[in-house]
Amino acid sequence: MIIIGEKINGSIPSVGKAIANRDADLIRNLAKIQAEANADYIDCCASVNVDELETIKWLIDLIQETTDVPICIDSPDPQVCADAMQFCKKAGIVNSVSLEGNKIDTIFPAIAGTGWGCVALLCDDSGIPKTSARRIEIFKEIMAKAEEFDIAPERLYIDPLVETLGTNGKSFLTFAETTKVIKELYPNVHITSGLSNISFGLPVRKMINMSFMVLAMQAGMDSAIVDPTNRDMMGIIYATDALLGNDDFCMEYIGAYRDNIFGPPPKD
Amino acid sequence: MIIIGEKINGSIPSVGKAIANRDADLIRNLAKIQAEANADYIDCCASVNVDELETIKWLIDLIQETTDVPICIDSPDPQVCADAMQFCKKAGIVNSVSLEGNKIDTIFPAIAGTGWGCVALLCDDSGIPKTSARRIEIFKEIMAKAEEFDIAPERLYIDPLVETLGTNGKSFLTFAETTKVIKELYPNVHITSGLSNISFGLPVRKMINMSFMVLAMQAGMDSAIVDPTNRDMMGIIYATDALLGNDDFCMEYIGAYRDNIFGPPPKD
Repeated sequence: MIIIGEKINGSIPSVGKAIANRDADLIRNLAKIQAEANADYIDCCASVNVDELETIKWLIDLIQETTDVPICIDSPDPQVCADAMQFCKKAGIVNSVSLEGNKIDTIFPAIAGTGWGCVALLCDDSGIPKTSARRIEIFKEIMAKAEEFDIAPERLYIDPLVETLGTNGKSFLTFAETTKVIKELYPNVHITSGLSNISFGLPVRKMINMSFMVLAMQAGMDSAIVDPTNRDMMGIIYATDALLGNDDFCMEYIGAYRDNIFGPPPKD
Repeated sequence: MIIIGEKINGSIPSVGKAIANRDADLIRNLAKIQAEANADYIDCCASVNVDELETIKWLIDLIQETTDVPICIDSPDPQVCADAMQFCKKAGIVNSVSLEGNKIDTIFPAIAGTGWGCVALLCDDSGIPKTSARRIEIFKEIMAKAEEFDIAPERLYIDPLVETLGTNGKSFLTFAETTKVIKELYPNVHITSGLSNISFGLPVRKMINMSFMVLAMQAGMDSAIVDPTNRDMMGIIYATDALLGNDDFCMEYIGAYRDNIFGPPPKD
Protein backbone atom coordinates (compact mmCIF):
# COMPACT_ATOMS: atom_id res chain seq x y z
CA MET A 1 0.00 0.00 0.00
CA ILE A 2 1.10 3.51 -0.88
CA ILE A 3 0.25 5.74 2.07
CA ILE A 4 -0.34 9.46 1.46
CA GLY A 5 -0.27 11.14 4.88
CA GLU A 6 -3.17 13.56 5.26
CA LYS A 7 -2.31 15.46 8.43
CA ILE A 8 -0.90 18.70 6.94
CA ASN A 9 -4.17 20.18 5.78
CA GLY A 10 -5.35 23.67 6.65
CA SER A 11 -8.95 22.49 6.78
CA ILE A 12 -8.08 20.66 10.02
CA PRO A 13 -8.74 23.38 12.63
CA SER A 14 -5.47 22.96 14.59
CA VAL A 15 -3.46 23.00 11.36
CA GLY A 16 -5.39 25.99 9.97
CA LYS A 17 -4.52 27.87 13.15
CA ALA A 18 -0.85 26.86 12.89
CA ILE A 19 -0.80 28.12 9.30
CA ALA A 20 -2.42 31.43 10.31
CA ASN A 21 0.13 31.87 13.12
CA ARG A 22 3.05 30.54 11.05
CA ASP A 23 3.70 27.95 13.77
CA ALA A 24 6.59 26.18 12.06
CA ASP A 25 7.22 23.68 14.85
CA LEU A 26 3.70 22.24 14.63
CA ILE A 27 4.04 21.72 10.87
CA ARG A 28 7.52 20.20 11.21
CA ASN A 29 6.21 17.85 13.86
CA LEU A 30 3.33 16.72 11.63
CA ALA A 31 5.86 15.99 8.88
CA LYS A 32 8.11 14.10 11.29
CA ILE A 33 5.45 11.87 12.85
CA GLN A 34 4.01 10.98 9.44
CA ALA A 35 7.46 10.12 8.06
CA GLU A 36 8.12 7.96 11.12
CA ALA A 37 4.76 6.26 10.60
CA ASN A 38 5.82 5.00 7.15
CA ALA A 39 4.02 7.58 4.97
CA ASP A 40 5.15 7.24 1.35
CA TYR A 41 4.04 10.80 0.54
CA ILE A 42 3.08 13.75 2.72
CA ASP A 43 0.01 15.62 1.53
CA CYS A 44 0.32 19.39 1.77
CA CYS A 45 -2.85 21.47 1.57
CA ALA A 46 -2.87 25.11 2.69
CA SER A 47 -6.64 25.61 2.53
CA VAL A 48 -6.34 29.40 2.61
CA ASN A 49 -8.22 32.01 0.58
CA VAL A 50 -5.31 34.41 0.01
CA ASP A 51 -1.61 33.93 -0.67
CA GLU A 52 -2.10 30.22 -1.26
CA LEU A 53 1.06 29.71 -3.27
CA GLU A 54 3.23 31.53 -0.73
CA THR A 55 1.60 29.52 2.08
CA ILE A 56 2.09 26.20 0.33
CA LYS A 57 5.76 27.11 -0.28
CA TRP A 58 6.17 27.79 3.44
CA LEU A 59 4.64 24.35 4.22
CA ILE A 60 6.73 22.55 1.61
CA ASP A 61 9.95 24.14 2.89
CA LEU A 62 9.14 23.03 6.45
CA ILE A 63 8.34 19.49 5.34
CA GLN A 64 11.58 19.30 3.36
CA GLU A 65 13.61 20.60 6.30
CA THR A 66 12.26 17.67 8.28
CA THR A 67 12.11 14.66 6.00
CA ASP A 68 12.90 13.50 2.49
CA VAL A 69 9.53 11.80 2.09
CA PRO A 70 8.15 13.24 -1.18
CA ILE A 71 5.25 15.66 -1.16
CA CYS A 72 1.70 15.42 -2.46
CA ILE A 73 0.72 18.99 -3.46
CA ASP A 74 -2.96 19.43 -2.67
CA SER A 75 -4.98 22.40 -3.86
CA PRO A 76 -8.37 23.00 -5.48
CA ASP A 77 -6.53 25.51 -7.72
CA PRO A 78 -4.71 23.65 -10.50
CA GLN A 79 -2.42 26.61 -11.17
CA VAL A 80 -1.24 26.55 -7.55
CA CYS A 81 -0.47 22.83 -7.93
CA ALA A 82 1.48 23.45 -11.12
CA ASP A 83 3.38 26.42 -9.68
CA ALA A 84 4.23 24.68 -6.40
CA MET A 85 6.01 21.78 -8.09
CA GLN A 86 9.14 23.94 -8.44
CA PHE A 87 9.50 24.18 -4.63
CA CYS A 88 9.85 20.42 -4.27
CA LYS A 89 13.29 18.80 -4.21
CA LYS A 90 11.98 15.58 -5.69
CA ALA A 91 9.07 14.40 -7.78
CA GLY A 92 5.88 13.83 -5.80
CA ILE A 93 2.17 13.68 -6.58
CA VAL A 94 -0.25 16.43 -7.60
CA ASN A 95 -3.65 16.23 -5.88
CA SER A 96 -5.75 16.41 -8.02
CA VAL A 97 -7.23 16.50 -11.50
CA SER A 98 -10.72 15.50 -12.64
CA LEU A 99 -12.88 16.53 -15.53
CA GLU A 100 -13.84 19.67 -13.60
CA GLY A 101 -12.97 23.01 -15.21
CA ASN A 102 -9.46 23.40 -16.57
CA LYS A 103 -7.74 21.08 -14.06
CA ILE A 104 -6.36 18.55 -16.52
CA ASP A 105 -5.37 21.17 -19.07
CA THR A 106 -3.35 22.97 -16.41
CA ILE A 107 -1.79 20.03 -14.57
CA PHE A 108 -1.08 17.42 -17.24
CA PRO A 109 1.15 19.77 -19.29
CA ALA A 110 2.96 20.68 -16.04
CA ILE A 111 3.77 17.07 -15.12
CA ALA A 112 4.43 15.88 -18.70
CA GLY A 113 8.05 14.79 -19.07
CA THR A 114 8.61 14.74 -15.28
CA GLY A 115 8.54 11.96 -12.70
CA TRP A 116 5.49 13.45 -10.98
CA GLY A 117 2.37 11.41 -10.32
CA CYS A 118 -1.17 12.73 -10.18
CA VAL A 119 -4.36 11.91 -8.30
CA ALA A 120 -7.37 11.85 -10.66
CA LEU A 121 -10.91 11.99 -9.29
CA LEU A 122 -13.63 10.38 -11.41
CA CYS A 123 -15.96 13.36 -11.34
CA ASP A 124 -16.80 16.22 -13.65
CA ASP A 125 -18.55 19.58 -13.41
CA SER A 126 -21.77 17.81 -12.34
CA GLY A 127 -20.17 16.27 -9.22
CA ILE A 128 -19.84 12.59 -8.31
CA PRO A 129 -21.61 10.42 -10.90
CA LYS A 130 -24.20 8.03 -9.46
CA THR A 131 -23.20 5.11 -11.66
CA SER A 132 -20.04 3.15 -12.11
CA ALA A 133 -20.59 3.31 -15.89
CA ARG A 134 -20.31 7.12 -15.92
CA ARG A 135 -17.21 7.02 -13.70
CA ILE A 136 -15.60 4.61 -16.17
CA GLU A 137 -16.40 7.03 -19.00
CA ILE A 138 -14.66 9.80 -17.08
CA PHE A 139 -11.74 7.46 -16.40
CA LYS A 140 -11.37 6.73 -20.10
CA GLU A 141 -11.38 10.44 -20.94
CA ILE A 142 -8.69 11.05 -18.33
CA MET A 143 -6.58 8.17 -19.70
CA ALA A 144 -6.90 9.55 -23.24
CA LYS A 145 -5.63 12.91 -22.00
CA ALA A 146 -2.81 11.19 -20.09
CA GLU A 147 -1.74 9.37 -23.22
CA GLU A 148 -1.75 12.63 -25.11
CA PHE A 149 0.82 13.98 -22.62
CA ASP A 150 2.71 10.68 -22.46
CA ILE A 151 1.88 10.19 -18.77
CA ALA A 152 2.21 6.45 -18.04
CA PRO A 153 -0.66 4.70 -16.21
CA GLU A 154 1.57 3.92 -13.20
CA ARG A 155 1.90 7.67 -12.55
CA LEU A 156 -1.85 8.02 -12.03
CA TYR A 157 -3.69 7.55 -8.73
CA ILE A 158 -7.33 7.12 -9.68
CA ASP A 159 -9.86 7.93 -6.96
CA PRO A 160 -13.18 6.26 -7.97
CA LEU A 161 -14.85 8.37 -5.23
CA VAL A 162 -17.29 7.34 -2.56
CA GLU A 163 -20.61 8.84 -1.60
CA THR A 164 -21.75 8.84 2.01
CA LEU A 165 -22.93 5.35 2.98
CA GLY A 166 -25.74 6.71 5.15
CA THR A 167 -27.52 8.11 2.11
CA ASN A 168 -26.32 5.67 -0.56
CA GLY A 169 -26.16 2.05 0.56
CA LYS A 170 -24.49 1.06 -2.71
CA SER A 171 -21.64 3.50 -2.23
CA PHE A 172 -18.94 0.89 -1.62
CA LEU A 173 -20.36 -1.49 -4.25
CA THR A 174 -20.13 1.24 -6.89
CA PHE A 175 -16.56 2.00 -5.78
CA ALA A 176 -15.59 -1.69 -5.97
CA GLU A 177 -17.19 -2.22 -9.36
CA THR A 178 -15.45 0.87 -10.77
CA THR A 179 -12.12 -0.25 -9.31
CA LYS A 180 -12.44 -3.72 -10.80
CA VAL A 181 -13.16 -2.44 -14.30
CA ILE A 182 -10.28 0.05 -14.13
CA LYS A 183 -7.83 -2.61 -12.99
CA GLU A 184 -8.89 -4.85 -15.87
CA LEU A 185 -8.40 -2.04 -18.38
CA TYR A 186 -5.14 -0.69 -16.88
CA PRO A 187 -3.54 -3.08 -14.37
CA ASN A 188 -0.70 -0.61 -13.66
CA VAL A 189 -2.87 2.32 -12.68
CA HIS A 190 -2.99 2.98 -8.93
CA ILE A 191 -6.33 3.19 -7.15
CA THR A 192 -6.57 5.54 -4.19
CA SER A 193 -9.23 7.04 -1.95
CA GLY A 194 -9.67 9.86 0.52
CA LEU A 195 -12.14 7.45 2.08
CA SER A 196 -13.45 9.40 5.05
CA ASN A 197 -16.45 10.65 3.04
CA ILE A 198 -17.84 7.09 3.19
CA SER A 199 -18.66 7.45 6.89
CA PHE A 200 -19.89 11.05 6.92
CA GLY A 201 -22.81 11.54 9.29
CA LEU A 202 -22.56 8.05 10.84
CA PRO A 203 -21.59 7.22 14.44
CA VAL A 204 -18.19 5.64 15.26
CA ARG A 205 -16.84 6.56 11.84
CA LYS A 206 -13.64 4.59 12.38
CA MET A 207 -15.59 1.32 12.13
CA ILE A 208 -16.90 2.23 8.68
CA ASN A 209 -13.54 3.65 7.59
CA MET A 210 -11.59 0.54 8.67
CA SER A 211 -14.06 -1.88 7.08
CA PHE A 212 -14.04 0.21 3.92
CA MET A 213 -10.23 0.09 3.82
CA VAL A 214 -10.21 -3.72 3.99
CA LEU A 215 -12.94 -4.14 1.37
CA ALA A 216 -11.39 -1.55 -0.94
CA MET A 217 -7.98 -3.22 -0.74
CA GLN A 218 -9.63 -6.51 -1.62
CA ALA A 219 -11.26 -4.78 -4.61
CA GLY A 220 -7.84 -3.57 -5.84
CA MET A 221 -7.12 -0.27 -4.08
CA ASP A 222 -3.35 0.04 -3.55
CA SER A 223 -3.06 3.54 -2.10
CA ALA A 224 -4.95 5.70 0.38
CA ILE A 225 -4.93 9.24 1.69
CA VAL A 226 -5.06 8.58 5.43
CA ASP A 227 -3.55 9.50 8.76
CA PRO A 228 -0.53 7.20 9.06
CA THR A 229 -0.38 7.87 12.81
CA ASN A 230 -3.79 6.20 13.13
CA ARG A 231 -2.37 2.99 14.60
CA ASP A 232 -5.54 0.93 14.20
CA MET A 233 -5.93 1.90 10.55
CA MET A 234 -2.28 1.10 9.83
CA GLY A 235 -2.60 -2.26 11.59
CA ILE A 236 -5.66 -3.05 9.49
CA ILE A 237 -3.75 -2.15 6.30
CA TYR A 238 -0.77 -4.40 7.13
CA ALA A 239 -3.09 -7.22 8.26
CA THR A 240 -5.17 -7.02 5.08
CA ASP A 241 -2.08 -7.07 2.87
CA ALA A 242 -0.96 -10.24 4.67
CA LEU A 243 -4.39 -11.90 4.41
CA LEU A 244 -4.57 -11.09 0.69
CA GLY A 245 -1.34 -13.04 0.17
CA ASN A 246 0.97 -10.05 -0.37
CA ASP A 247 3.22 -10.55 2.65
CA ASP A 248 5.15 -13.81 2.89
CA PHE A 249 5.24 -15.17 6.44
CA CYS A 250 3.79 -11.83 7.58
CA MET A 251 7.28 -10.31 7.53
CA GLU A 252 6.00 -6.83 6.63
CA TYR A 253 3.25 -7.07 9.25
CA ILE A 254 5.66 -8.17 11.96
CA GLY A 255 8.25 -5.57 10.84
CA ALA A 256 5.73 -2.73 10.99
CA TYR A 257 4.69 -3.89 14.46
CA ARG A 258 8.35 -3.90 15.57
CA ASP A 259 8.77 -0.44 14.04
CA ASN A 260 5.92 0.70 16.29
CA ILE A 261 3.58 1.55 13.40
CA PHE A 262 0.63 -0.19 15.06
CA GLY A 263 -0.28 -2.05 18.22
CA PRO A 264 -0.61 -0.65 21.72
CA PRO A 265 1.32 2.62 21.92
CA PRO A 266 4.57 2.38 23.90
CA LYS A 267 4.34 3.45 27.53
CA ASP A 268 6.19 6.68 28.32
CA MET B 1 -24.57 -12.08 10.51
CA ILE B 2 -25.36 -14.93 12.87
CA ILE B 3 -23.24 -14.44 15.98
CA ILE B 4 -22.35 -17.48 18.09
CA GLY B 5 -21.02 -16.14 21.40
CA GLU B 6 -17.83 -17.95 22.41
CA LYS B 7 -17.29 -16.83 26.00
CA ILE B 8 -18.64 -19.88 27.89
CA ASN B 9 -15.76 -22.22 27.15
CA GLY B 10 -13.84 -24.14 29.81
CA SER B 11 -10.62 -23.77 27.83
CA ILE B 12 -10.63 -20.06 28.76
CA PRO B 13 -8.74 -20.12 32.10
CA SER B 14 -11.18 -17.95 34.08
CA VAL B 15 -14.13 -20.00 32.80
CA GLY B 16 -12.33 -23.30 33.48
CA LYS B 17 -11.81 -22.16 37.07
CA ALA B 18 -15.47 -21.12 37.38
CA ILE B 19 -16.53 -24.56 36.14
CA ALA B 20 -14.19 -26.32 38.58
CA ASN B 21 -15.57 -24.20 41.46
CA ARG B 22 -19.17 -24.36 40.21
CA ASP B 23 -19.26 -20.55 40.22
CA ALA B 24 -22.79 -20.16 38.86
CA ASP B 25 -22.79 -16.35 38.97
CA LEU B 26 -19.82 -16.06 36.64
CA ILE B 27 -21.47 -18.36 34.08
CA ARG B 28 -24.82 -16.57 34.36
CA ASN B 29 -23.07 -13.26 33.84
CA LEU B 30 -21.30 -14.54 30.71
CA ALA B 31 -24.68 -15.63 29.36
CA LYS B 32 -26.24 -12.29 30.22
CA ILE B 33 -23.60 -10.06 28.67
CA GLN B 34 -23.52 -12.10 25.47
CA ALA B 35 -27.32 -12.01 25.16
CA GLU B 36 -27.23 -8.24 25.70
CA ALA B 37 -24.53 -7.97 23.04
CA ASN B 38 -26.86 -9.45 20.38
CA ALA B 39 -25.53 -13.03 20.32
CA ASP B 40 -27.83 -15.25 18.24
CA TYR B 41 -26.54 -18.41 19.96
CA ILE B 42 -24.48 -18.97 23.08
CA ASP B 43 -21.75 -21.57 22.68
CA CYS B 44 -21.39 -23.89 25.64
CA CYS B 45 -18.20 -25.92 25.96
CA ALA B 46 -17.25 -27.59 29.25
CA SER B 47 -13.72 -28.61 28.25
CA VAL B 48 -13.41 -31.08 31.14
CA ASN B 49 -11.97 -34.59 31.16
CA VAL B 50 -14.48 -36.19 33.51
CA ASP B 51 -18.23 -35.81 33.99
CA GLU B 52 -18.52 -33.78 30.79
CA LEU B 53 -22.23 -34.42 30.25
CA GLU B 54 -23.11 -33.49 33.83
CA THR B 55 -20.96 -30.35 33.54
CA ILE B 56 -22.51 -29.29 30.27
CA LYS B 57 -25.97 -29.80 31.77
CA TRP B 58 -25.01 -27.50 34.65
CA LEU B 59 -23.85 -24.87 32.14
CA ILE B 60 -26.93 -25.21 29.93
CA ASP B 61 -29.25 -24.88 32.94
CA LEU B 62 -27.48 -21.70 34.04
CA ILE B 63 -27.66 -20.20 30.56
CA GLN B 64 -31.36 -21.03 30.30
CA GLU B 65 -32.06 -19.50 33.70
CA THR B 66 -30.60 -16.27 32.35
CA THR B 67 -31.67 -15.88 28.74
CA ASP B 68 -33.74 -17.51 26.04
CA VAL B 69 -30.98 -17.15 23.44
CA PRO B 70 -30.56 -20.68 22.03
CA ILE B 71 -27.50 -22.74 22.83
CA CYS B 72 -24.68 -24.05 20.69
CA ILE B 73 -23.57 -27.32 22.31
CA ASP B 74 -19.81 -27.61 21.88
CA SER B 75 -17.88 -30.79 22.63
CA PRO B 76 -15.18 -32.87 20.95
CA ASP B 77 -17.26 -35.91 21.99
CA PRO B 78 -20.17 -36.39 19.57
CA GLN B 79 -22.07 -38.52 22.08
CA VAL B 80 -21.98 -35.70 24.62
CA CYS B 81 -23.36 -33.34 21.96
CA ALA B 82 -26.16 -35.77 21.12
CA ASP B 83 -26.99 -36.46 24.77
CA ALA B 84 -26.96 -32.79 25.79
CA MET B 85 -29.63 -31.78 23.27
CA GLN B 86 -32.32 -33.02 25.66
CA PHE B 87 -31.34 -30.39 28.26
CA CYS B 88 -32.12 -27.54 25.89
CA LYS B 89 -35.53 -25.87 25.92
CA LYS B 90 -35.30 -24.94 22.27
CA ALA B 91 -33.45 -26.08 19.17
CA GLY B 92 -29.90 -24.74 18.89
CA ILE B 93 -26.74 -25.76 17.08
CA VAL B 94 -24.43 -28.72 17.64
CA ASN B 95 -20.71 -27.87 17.40
CA SER B 96 -19.44 -29.85 15.54
CA VAL B 97 -19.23 -32.64 13.00
CA SER B 98 -16.50 -33.29 10.42
CA LEU B 99 -15.30 -36.42 8.68
CA GLU B 100 -13.29 -37.30 11.79
CA GLY B 101 -14.13 -40.58 13.50
CA ASN B 102 -17.80 -41.29 14.12
CA LYS B 103 -18.91 -37.67 14.56
CA ILE B 104 -21.38 -37.51 11.69
CA ASP B 105 -22.77 -40.98 12.36
CA THR B 106 -23.50 -39.98 15.95
CA ILE B 107 -24.77 -36.44 15.48
CA PHE B 108 -26.71 -36.48 12.19
CA PRO B 109 -29.13 -39.21 13.40
CA ALA B 110 -29.60 -37.22 16.63
CA ILE B 111 -30.58 -34.00 14.87
CA ALA B 112 -32.56 -35.68 12.06
CA GLY B 113 -36.21 -34.66 12.24
CA THR B 114 -35.48 -31.80 14.70
CA GLY B 115 -34.97 -28.07 14.25
CA TRP B 116 -31.33 -28.28 15.34
CA GLY B 117 -28.51 -26.88 13.23
CA CYS B 118 -24.97 -28.22 13.08
CA VAL B 119 -21.49 -26.79 12.57
CA ALA B 120 -19.49 -28.89 10.10
CA LEU B 121 -15.72 -28.53 9.85
CA LEU B 122 -14.15 -29.38 6.51
CA CYS B 123 -11.50 -31.72 7.92
CA ASP B 124 -11.07 -35.43 8.30
CA ASP B 125 -8.87 -37.81 10.27
CA SER B 126 -5.77 -36.31 8.57
CA GLY B 127 -6.46 -32.78 9.89
CA ILE B 128 -7.00 -29.58 7.91
CA PRO B 129 -6.54 -30.23 4.19
CA LYS B 130 -4.00 -27.97 2.48
CA THR B 131 -6.09 -27.42 -0.63
CA SER B 132 -9.48 -25.94 -1.27
CA ALA B 133 -10.21 -28.87 -3.62
CA ARG B 134 -9.90 -31.42 -0.83
CA ARG B 135 -12.06 -29.30 1.49
CA ILE B 136 -14.74 -29.21 -1.20
CA GLU B 137 -14.58 -33.00 -1.46
CA ILE B 138 -15.16 -33.24 2.28
CA PHE B 139 -18.00 -30.71 2.00
CA LYS B 140 -19.68 -32.84 -0.66
CA GLU B 141 -19.39 -35.97 1.50
CA ILE B 142 -20.94 -34.09 4.41
CA MET B 143 -23.79 -32.80 2.22
CA ALA B 144 -24.47 -36.32 0.94
CA LYS B 145 -24.73 -37.51 4.54
CA ALA B 146 -26.99 -34.57 5.40
CA GLU B 147 -29.30 -35.42 2.55
CA GLU B 148 -29.44 -39.01 3.74
CA PHE B 149 -30.80 -37.74 7.08
CA ASP B 150 -32.99 -35.10 5.43
CA ILE B 151 -31.06 -32.24 7.05
CA ALA B 152 -31.68 -29.13 4.92
CA PRO B 153 -28.66 -27.06 3.81
CA GLU B 154 -29.84 -24.03 5.80
CA ARG B 155 -29.38 -26.04 9.03
CA LEU B 156 -25.67 -26.46 8.34
CA TYR B 157 -22.92 -24.03 9.40
CA ILE B 158 -19.92 -24.96 7.31
CA ASP B 159 -16.52 -23.94 8.70
CA PRO B 160 -14.04 -24.04 5.77
CA LEU B 161 -11.24 -23.76 8.39
CA VAL B 162 -8.23 -21.49 8.45
CA GLU B 163 -4.62 -22.30 9.01
CA THR B 164 -2.35 -19.87 10.84
CA LEU B 165 -1.43 -16.99 8.52
CA GLY B 166 2.10 -16.76 9.89
CA THR B 167 2.97 -20.17 8.46
CA ASN B 168 0.59 -20.25 5.47
CA GLY B 169 0.28 -16.97 3.60
CA LYS B 170 -2.50 -18.41 1.44
CA SER B 171 -4.65 -19.29 4.46
CA PHE B 172 -7.34 -16.69 3.84
CA LEU B 173 -7.27 -17.16 0.07
CA THR B 174 -7.94 -20.90 0.49
CA PHE B 175 -10.79 -20.07 2.91
CA ALA B 176 -12.29 -17.57 0.46
CA GLU B 177 -12.02 -19.90 -2.53
CA THR B 178 -13.65 -22.74 -0.58
CA THR B 179 -16.42 -20.44 0.61
CA LYS B 180 -17.13 -19.21 -2.91
CA VAL B 181 -17.44 -22.71 -4.35
CA ILE B 182 -19.69 -23.84 -1.48
CA LYS B 183 -22.00 -20.85 -1.90
CA GLU B 184 -22.28 -21.57 -5.62
CA LEU B 185 -23.17 -25.21 -4.94
CA TYR B 186 -25.51 -24.55 -1.98
CA PRO B 187 -26.54 -20.88 -1.66
CA ASN B 188 -28.55 -21.62 1.51
CA VAL B 189 -25.78 -23.23 3.50
CA HIS B 190 -24.31 -20.99 6.22
CA ILE B 191 -20.58 -20.34 6.34
CA THR B 192 -19.02 -19.84 9.75
CA SER B 193 -15.57 -19.64 11.31
CA GLY B 194 -13.92 -19.85 14.69
CA LEU B 195 -11.46 -17.44 13.08
CA SER B 196 -8.95 -16.81 15.85
CA ASN B 197 -6.65 -19.56 14.53
CA ILE B 198 -5.85 -17.26 11.59
CA SER B 199 -3.78 -14.96 13.83
CA PHE B 200 -2.11 -17.56 16.04
CA GLY B 201 1.50 -16.62 16.86
CA LEU B 202 1.25 -13.10 15.37
CA PRO B 203 1.42 -9.80 17.28
CA VAL B 204 -1.70 -7.62 17.79
CA ARG B 205 -3.96 -10.51 16.81
CA LYS B 206 -7.06 -8.31 16.79
CA MET B 207 -5.83 -6.56 13.63
CA ILE B 208 -5.61 -9.86 11.75
CA ASN B 209 -8.89 -11.10 13.24
CA MET B 210 -10.81 -7.94 12.30
CA SER B 211 -9.41 -7.80 8.76
CA PHE B 212 -10.17 -11.49 8.35
CA MET B 213 -13.74 -10.90 9.48
CA VAL B 214 -14.29 -8.21 6.84
CA LEU B 215 -12.70 -10.21 4.03
CA ALA B 216 -14.51 -13.41 5.01
CA MET B 217 -17.87 -11.61 5.07
CA GLN B 218 -17.10 -10.28 1.60
CA ALA B 219 -16.34 -13.85 0.50
CA GLY B 220 -19.74 -15.03 1.75
CA MET B 221 -19.34 -15.90 5.45
CA ASP B 222 -22.62 -15.17 7.25
CA SER B 223 -21.89 -16.45 10.75
CA ALA B 224 -18.99 -16.41 13.18
CA ILE B 225 -18.04 -17.86 16.53
CA VAL B 226 -16.77 -14.75 18.29
CA ASP B 227 -16.92 -12.75 21.49
CA PRO B 228 -19.99 -10.50 21.01
CA THR B 229 -18.77 -8.25 23.82
CA ASN B 230 -15.73 -7.38 21.69
CA ARG B 231 -17.05 -3.97 20.74
CA ASP B 232 -14.54 -3.31 17.97
CA MET B 233 -15.25 -6.65 16.31
CA MET B 234 -19.01 -6.07 16.52
CA GLY B 235 -18.62 -2.58 15.05
CA ILE B 236 -16.60 -4.02 12.19
CA ILE B 237 -19.30 -6.64 11.52
CA TYR B 238 -22.13 -4.08 11.39
CA ALA B 239 -20.01 -1.70 9.30
CA THR B 240 -19.12 -4.43 6.81
CA ASP B 241 -22.74 -5.53 6.45
CA ALA B 242 -23.64 -1.92 5.64
CA LEU B 243 -20.79 -1.49 3.15
CA LEU B 244 -21.75 -4.74 1.40
CA GLY B 245 -25.22 -3.31 0.76
CA ASN B 246 -27.10 -5.39 3.35
CA ASP B 247 -28.27 -2.54 5.58
CA ASP B 248 -30.47 0.14 4.00
CA PHE B 249 -29.59 3.62 5.23
CA CYS B 250 -27.34 1.96 7.86
CA MET B 251 -30.38 1.42 10.08
CA GLU B 252 -28.97 -1.79 11.61
CA TYR B 253 -25.58 -0.14 12.12
CA ILE B 254 -27.07 2.91 13.79
CA GLY B 255 -29.47 0.74 15.83
CA ALA B 256 -26.64 -1.46 17.14
CA TYR B 257 -24.69 1.67 18.07
CA ARG B 258 -27.71 3.03 19.95
CA ASP B 259 -28.11 -0.36 21.65
CA ASN B 260 -24.55 0.06 22.91
CA ILE B 261 -23.21 -2.95 20.97
CA PHE B 262 -20.16 -1.01 19.75
CA GLY B 263 -18.53 2.38 20.01
CA PRO B 264 -16.84 3.92 23.05
CA PRO B 265 -18.09 2.12 26.18
CA PRO B 266 -20.47 4.17 28.30
CA LYS B 267 -18.87 6.00 31.22
CA ASP B 268 -19.84 4.63 34.64
